Formats: sequence, structure tokens, C-alpha cells
Amino acid sequence: MDMLWSGWGDPAKAAPLPDTVTGLLRDLLGVTPRGSGPTALDDIAVPGSPLTPEAHRALADCLGDPAHLRTDAETRIRHTRGKSTPDLLRIRAGEVDDIPAAVLLPGSHDEVLAVLRVCAEHQVAAVPFGGGTSVVGGLAPERTTFVALDLRRLDALLGLDEVSRTATLQPGLRAPRAEALLNERGYTLGHFPQSYEWATIGGFAAARSSGQASAGYGRFDEMVLGLTVATPEGTWETGRAPRSAAGPDLRQLVLGSEGALGVITSVTVRIRPLPQERVYEGWRFASFEAGAAALRRIAQDGPRPTVLRLSDETETFIGLAQPDRIGSADAAGSAGCMAVVGYEGTAAANEECRTGVHQVLLAEGGEHVGSEPGDRWAHGRYNAPYLRDALLDAGAFAETLETAAFWSAIPELYQGVRLALTTTLTDAGTPPLVMCHISHVYENGASLYFTVVSAQGEDPVAHWAPAKHAANEAILAAGGTISHHHGVGTDHRDWYATEVGPLGVRVLQAAKAELDPAGVLNPGILVPPRHP
Amino acid sequence: MDMLWSGWGDPAKAAPLPDTVTGLLRDLLGVTPRGSGPTALDDIAVPGSPLTPEAHRALADCLGDPAHLRTDAETRIRHTRGKSTPDLLRIRAGEVDDIPAAVLLPGSHDEVLAVLRVCAEHQVAAVPFGGGTSVVGGLAPERTTFVALDLRRLDALLGLDEVSRTATLQPGLRAPRAEALLNERGYTLGHFPQSYEWATIGGFAAARSSGQASAGYGRFDEMVLGLTVATPEGTWETGRAPRSAAGPDLRQLVLGSEGALGVITSVTVRIRPLPQERVYEGWRFASFEAGAAALRRIAQDGPRPTVLRLSDETETFIGLAQPDRIGSADAAGSAGCMAVVGYEGTAAANEECRTGVHQVLLAEGGEHVGSEPGDRWAHGRYNAPYLRDALLDAGAFAETLETAAFWSAIPELYQGVRLALTTTLTDAGTPPLVMCHISHVYENGASLYFTVVSAQGEDPVAHWAPAKHAANEAILAAGGTISHHHGVGTDHRDWYATEVGPLGVRVLQAAKAELDPAGVLNPGILVPPRHP
Repeated sequence: MDMLWSGWGDPAKAAPLPDTVTGLLRDLLGVTPRGSGPTALDDIAVPGSPLTPEAHRALADCLGDPAHLRTDAETRIRHTRGKSTPDLLRIRAGEVDDIPAAVLLPGSHDEVLAVLRVCAEHQVAAVPFGGGTSVVGGLAPERTTFVALDLRRLDALLGLDEVSRTATLQPGLRAPRAEALLNERGYTLGHFPQSYEWATIGGFAAARSSGQASAGYGRFDEMVLGLTVATPEGTWETGRAPRSAAGPDLRQLVLGSEGALGVITSVTVRIRPLPQERVYEGWRFASFEAGAAALRRIAQDGPRPTVLRLSDETETFIGLAQPDRIGSADAAGSAGCMAVVGYEGTAAANEECRTGVHQVLLAEGGEHVGSEPGDRWAHGRYNAPYLRDALLDAGAFAETLETAAFWSAIPELYQGVRLALTTTLTDAGTPPLVMCHISHVYENGASLYFTVVSAQGEDPVAHWAPAKHAANEAILAAGGTISHHHGVGTDHRDWYATEVGPLGVRVLQAAKAELDPAGVLNPGILVPPRHP
Repeated sequence: MDMLWSGWGDPAKAAPLPDTVTGLLRDLLGVTPRGSGPTALDDIAVPGSPLTPEAHRALADCLGDPAHLRTDAETRIRHTRGKSTPDLLRIRAGEVDDIPAAVLLPGSHDEVLAVLRVCAEHQVAAVPFGGGTSVVGGLAPERTTFVALDLRRLDALLGLDEVSRTATLQPGLRAPRAEALLNERGYTLGHFPQSYEWATIGGFAAARSSGQASAGYGRFDEMVLGLTVATPEGTWETGRAPRSAAGPDLRQLVLGSEGALGVITSVTVRIRPLPQERVYEGWRFASFEAGAAALRRIAQDGPRPTVLRLSDETETFIGLAQPDRIGSADAAGSAGCMAVVGYEGTAAANEECRTGVHQVLLAEGGEHVGSEPGDRWAHGRYNAPYLRDALLDAGAFAETLETAAFWSAIPELYQGVRLALTTTLTDAGTPPLVMCHISHVYENGASLYFTVVSAQGEDPVAHWAPAKHAANEAILAAGGTISHHHGVGTDHRDWYATEVGPLGVRVLQAAKAELDPAGVLNPGILVPPRHP
């Protein structure tokens, strides 16, 4: 099944907003219904493929079957940009100026290698496409002729080493399928980001994804032990041992490279035994500050549960942590901040960890509010993107952004980003609701995940741009990273350049020039092309 | 105090071998005493400094005080090469063909920057020098005029963030001093490699050091959160948040770069509360295989102690884990394999962990042999390099090498390296004693640390070379990395090139060319110079 072209996920799961929410949006934010929904797919004016006949033929020759090179309008539309709110607003309006010239479906590492060689020869750019879930412009390269490399045919579990507890996966495997293949053998990857239902293994690696169970299972980049990469210059293999002192860790150069250094064609990951039991529970804290202090204590001194997240007062009040309860009486009636704590493992290990966690959270002033909030969170954990579609349909604007910093910088980062978003959007006449949660914790810091809802304004894409700009500036000013788990893409590129500094940019450009001398790999993503 | 120029450590701590050991060496390995010890320092013929007067003046101008540029013979000899056994054999023989032209003692990041600019201008190579403990030729660049940048004056604790639990340290801090500065504030780094008494923070980062308590505290590269690097092209800062999805992790390009990409001038590390209690104990297993299986179970399913290591039968028999007991009756009388398990933390946490570990190790067939073997290990943990000096003095050859691999490759790696060393040295007429231990464990694999003792042969440096070559080949053939914690230097460079492949080498060369266009940073270390 393909994802909804104009929004998120399985079209059958789309649901309109409850009347209570529509009322809240109107009364609180001045959201008024828009007249029309998305343009019809058939009404979108798609330009002909700009591929030259020579390039078309040479690319087709790389693939076993002519059906694996597609230039029909629908396929091309479905591979246009990603799933950020501006992406959705533009595709809903029928804007397809970033449309690929063709969609290729390579079936092997060697086919990807061949395609990249042809791309270099014909000056056609290549954009790897996994789940298509980028929210940072990672699929919209600099205006140029490009093909999307849809990796869905590379969907095998290539190997599983039970002694070493590693699995080698192809990049086009969607997360639920990868998880099912591992589950059959008694293992789990433990990687459950919000994009779980659609995102792929290759995308997780290329964009340094982080899942909702990261407290227990770690980030995706921490799970990766080896990578095979296809580049225009040939095959690049990294990762010979779990840890090594043999030079720089080149795996860490591939992770986060977002298709700019090569196309990841296999990923060897650490796997863990399937948990016997998954237990989630809710905790209430008097304030975001108090809750954050409690999470910090757990992150630094343990015991470490598998899931650990904390909504701020606004998010708790609105109940976004439980989307299906938004605006309901009991969500609105709850004061303070809600945390979700989860335990995944053997029953005995869960019980032991839970006892220790309870001791710490009680000492930190937490109130245990039972399993119901945890279960509701677990039940609705992948639903927020569906909710966004409904909000857009209702005439609201909704977007998320995220960052991470050392613990000591978290209070200023939290206040700075909220202020930037609130001021910018209020000045523009659409006062927003800004919600935040701590989504991931580490010994030395944490991530902050913000959700913004407001009225759309006249031109919603243009309306949002200054707010996003101000949030990015606030993130850097407060010492945060421009992205904790969404990536850089084109949307964050300028701030990323500030974050890594001119020498960091030059090193990446030099690596890219070496692996991709023709500059055809997702050009303009991550770093600007060299000597433009 | 300076390290012994012709060997290891504090000259006052040197001790001759016990007679029992001398007897064993003679009877077992045919080791016969050498007539003479090291050449006297004053007898070494040191060539004049090849620095041009212009370069000398320009370099001196970068430093505040003329005394910070030294060209006297003793200082230069003390900065010649590192501490591998071939390094020691050559310096003991008075060979100083790798001697630096001068030794510089910069006192700030800006002075290092200025020195590197002058080096680039005058085509003088620069080799960062911390503790001088490299055992892989990391301080002996390609034959060229070079200066050693001794970083001992960069020895401050720059900052400590108790909320985030991070500390920023200068690179020239020796580990015991860094540890003392942190201990005063109630924290520890938890990094205790065998080179602990002499090695520096900068060296740990540049060579991806791993300490004996890595099971609990992690490797040094896992502790590093940020790095400042001086390069001929300017300052490079990496690490803005504990974790990030903002592109490749550039910290991981600096870690392990061994001075080839820049000079590390500050390191921000994760710190932990000082443990209340340190408890070590011994466990005996019937075989190395059985012990390795037990360690694997602990590494994969926990609970994880702080120290976890296992000697093979030969090492257990010889008692190298307890150097002061070598050849003693009770060491020789012990069968099987000895493991050391250590717990560092609060008394309660230690007790809880210990109970869990005992349960697993007993189930895996281990026999708890009390705290005495653990305490003896802890007491003698930094002594092996002193023992090597005594062995060299006694006419024996002694060297170590190490690797790591995924668990499933460990048996073949273990057998392959032992066979390569034994065959090569036996064929050369000096049958060796080859001992091994698992020094570090991970969920997905482990490291193997080999110690070789034999007679020296006629020309000991030349005699060892084919054995080291064969061991390196065996490591790569069995899927191991060419180094788990010693690094690449010049000694492992050719095998490293095989390990990372031609594209890996090209990426590193491209990064180096960008940061060091004149090619003056430790040239020939890690990767061969580009377009030679």
C-alpha cells in the first residue's frame, strides 16, 4: 500500500476532528474552516519528464525490467518532497515544482551502483527514497533534473547472527516489516519513532532517527554496526567490529549523511531479545521543571526504563500526548505535567526496574497516576501525523520541530524557542499554541520536541517561514543542535552550517567531492554544493 | 617527572626479574642474557636540528618564552618515537633516525594555531605529543623535518558542569592529574587504561583509548561529547549536544585521527560520580571457551559490572594477570582460565550487581575464587610495561597486540592469531609463549589482547617484523579490526587501508587535504599522503 499522497499514512485511517477540537481551535486560535481540501490528484499539472532519451535509456538499462523505471504522473507526484507541513500544504495546492524526472526501483546493490554511474555520466541527480517521510526537505534537492531511487525492492533480511546478536537488513525494509522478520526469530530492533509505520531502515540510518523507546534501546545510530554504501565511485563498506581504535569511525560519517555521500544498501544492526512484557504508566509532576529534574536523575543515575518522556504544562493540558482526548473534560481538568514511563523486557527485569524508578520519581515529587495514561500513549503513539492532516483540513496550521542540548542549557532552550514561536506568530496575527515534550533523555542532556498549532494565515507556507526561522535562531542561540532526530535536509542547511562551522562544512564538502565528483548525490542537501 | 627515555615509566619503579622467571625464560624459551643494557643517553649521536634559522625564528615567535622551543639533544631524544617494543629496542640501541628537529611547548590553543600556520608555511611537519605512549608508531611520521608539539602546558580543567555532568579538559593533562582534579569535585572519568600513569587526555581522544573499566564506564570515545581542534586552516569545534541528527557525527572523525587532521586542544567529556566502593574478584572457568561464553552472556543480558576480563589458559598458567607471581607455585598449579570481575559504585548498587553477576556466572559454570585474584589484578594493573623492560634487560623479547571482532568471529580470530605468531616465531628459531585475554566486552563482540614472549633472535626488531605481519594478516582474515585500542600509527597503516577499503582511505585523505593542505600534520600516520 502506498501512503496518502497529500498527507500521512493509510487513507483509511484518516478521521475528521471531533467537534470539541474544532470549537477549541475557533475559540482559542481563531481558526476558520478553509473552503477547499486538496487538489485532486488528476488535476495536478505535471510537466513531462525532463530526462533526455539517452539518460532514460541508460538508466533503464541498469534495471532488470522496464517497469522499474517509472515516469507516470502519479508515481512522480507520490515521490515529490516529504511530509513536513509546508510539503503537505504545497502538494495539497498542486505545486509540483520539485517533482522527480523519474522514479527508479533498483533491486540490488549492483543496480544502485550502475544507476549512480549513469547519473554521474548524464548529470542527473539521484535522491534515495525510503518511506518518503522526511520533514526537513531531505527529498527536494537543488532545482535540477533528478530521479528518485525508491528502495522498496531492497527489502530483505540478509542475515541474522544469533551469537553476536546482529542482523543485516536492506534499506527499503519498512520498520514494521523489519520488526516482523526479527520477531519471527525472537528478536527486536526496538526502534519505534513516530514515523514507524512508514519509515525504512535506510532512512533511519541516513537521517539518524531516534525512537520512542530510545531510553532503553538507544538511538538508531547507536544500533548500527556496519553499513554498505553505493557511491558513483564504487562500493564503500564500513564497520568491521563493534568497536575499534582503527582511525576515525567512518560509520558515523555515513550515518546522518542523508543521501549526500552515497546510497545505503545494507545496514547491520544490533538486535535484542523480544521483550516478554511491555508496561507503560503515567506520572504527574507539579511543573515541567520538576519533571525534567526527575527525568534527569533517572537518566544520570538510573535505573533506566525503556520509555521516558515528559509533556510540558500546555501539552499536558491540551492532552496532545493522547490525541483522541484533546479537549475532553478530564484532560483539561488535569494540572501539572504528565510523564510516560515504559518498561520492556522480562517480567522480572521490568519489575525490578519499575521498583527502582518509582523510588526515584516519588523522591522527586512525582505522583504515580497508574497505567491508563501510559496505555493510552502507547495506543495512540503513531497517530499525531493523522491528526495533523485533520487540522490542516479544518483550516489550522500544525507543525513540529525539535532540538537537543546539554541539561544545563535545557531551561533557556525551552523558553527561547517558545518565545520565538509565540512572538513571531502573534505578531503575524495568528497567536499559536506551543506545546513541548522531552522526547529523549541522555546522561548529559535531552531533546525537546515542540508542536505548534495556529490559524493558517493567508499564505500558510509563507506565514510559517519567519516563525521557523526564529525558532532555528533561538535553538542555536541557546546552545541547542538544529536537529535531534529530524535531520538537516534543505530546511536546516543554513543553521547546520553555523552549527558545524566553516571547517565542518568544508570537510563534508571534501568527502562529498571525493565520493561524488559529479555532484549528483542529493545535491544541496546537508551542505551547499562546493564552489557554487 | 619525565618518563624513562629508554623504557617505561618512573625509573625508580624498575625492578629486575625474579630468578624463577629468568629460569623459566631460559628453560622454556631459550632466552639467554644479553651482554649490555641500553646505550647511555650521553653516548647517543644526535644530529643537529635540521630547522632552518627562519623556521626556528618563526616557530619561536609563536611561543611566549624562548625556553618553550627546545633543541637540546636530551629533550629531542625523549620525544623520539613511542613505547612499542621495536621503539624501545631501537632507542636502547641509540638509533635516533626519527628524532624531532625541535620540541615545542605551546601554552594555549592560539599558540598551537600559530605554530601550525608557521609549520605549513615552512613545510615543517608537526607531531602532537601527549604522554608519548604510542605503541603503533604514531609519533614517527614519514621521514621529514618535524617538530614535536609537547602539550604538557595545556593541563587545565577548563570547566565542570555538574548539571550536565560534563567536564572540559585540556589535552596535555595526564590521566592521574585529570582524575585528581575531578575527584576533588566528587567525580571520576572512569578511564584506566594500562598507560594510565603517563597517557594524556588528548592522546586518549586522538587514539580512541579504552580503559580497563570499560564494561562500566565505556571507551574513551564514548565519553567524548565535544572537541576543539587546531588545524593549519583554523579552529574546528565539534559537539553541540550529547546526541544529534544534524548530519554526520564529526566528533567521530576527530576521535582516532591521531594528529593527522589537527591538534586536539580541548576535550569535553562525560563525568560520573566518584564510586563509593571498588570491589574486584576472581572467577575460574574450565576453558577459555566456557569463560568467553559467560562473559558474552553478561555483556548481552547483564547485569553489567565495571570490570570484566578473562585470561586464556596460557595467560592464567603463567599468571601474567598477576605479574608479581609469575612462575610462583600457586599460579602454575592453577588450571583453567581466570576472569576478573569488578564493581565500582555505591555499596548498594555494587551488591545488587554482584548478586546478579554471580547468578549468571555460576549458571555458566564459573567458580568464584574470592577477592584475592581481583585485588592482586587491581594492585598490579599498570605494571606490565615495567615487566617488559625487565624482560628486555634479561634478553627476552616481549610485545603485545590487540584486536576486536563480533562474538561469532572470536574463536577463529583467537586461533588464527595464536597460530600466526607461534608458527612464524617457531620457524624463525624462537618458539614463543603466546598469551591472550579478553580485555573489553560489548553486546556484539569483544576485544582480544595478545602478549608474546620469546627469545630475541639476532636482530630483535627485524626478527619480530614477520611475526607482527603474520598476526596482522590473521586478524584481517578472521574478520577482526586491526586495532581495538592501540590505534593505527604507521605500524598498522597498510592493514588499516585494507580494513577501510580504498574509498575509506580516499575520504580520509580528502578530509586531511582540506584541513591540512600543506600536509604537515603527522604526515604518513593513519593514511598514506595523497598523490605521493
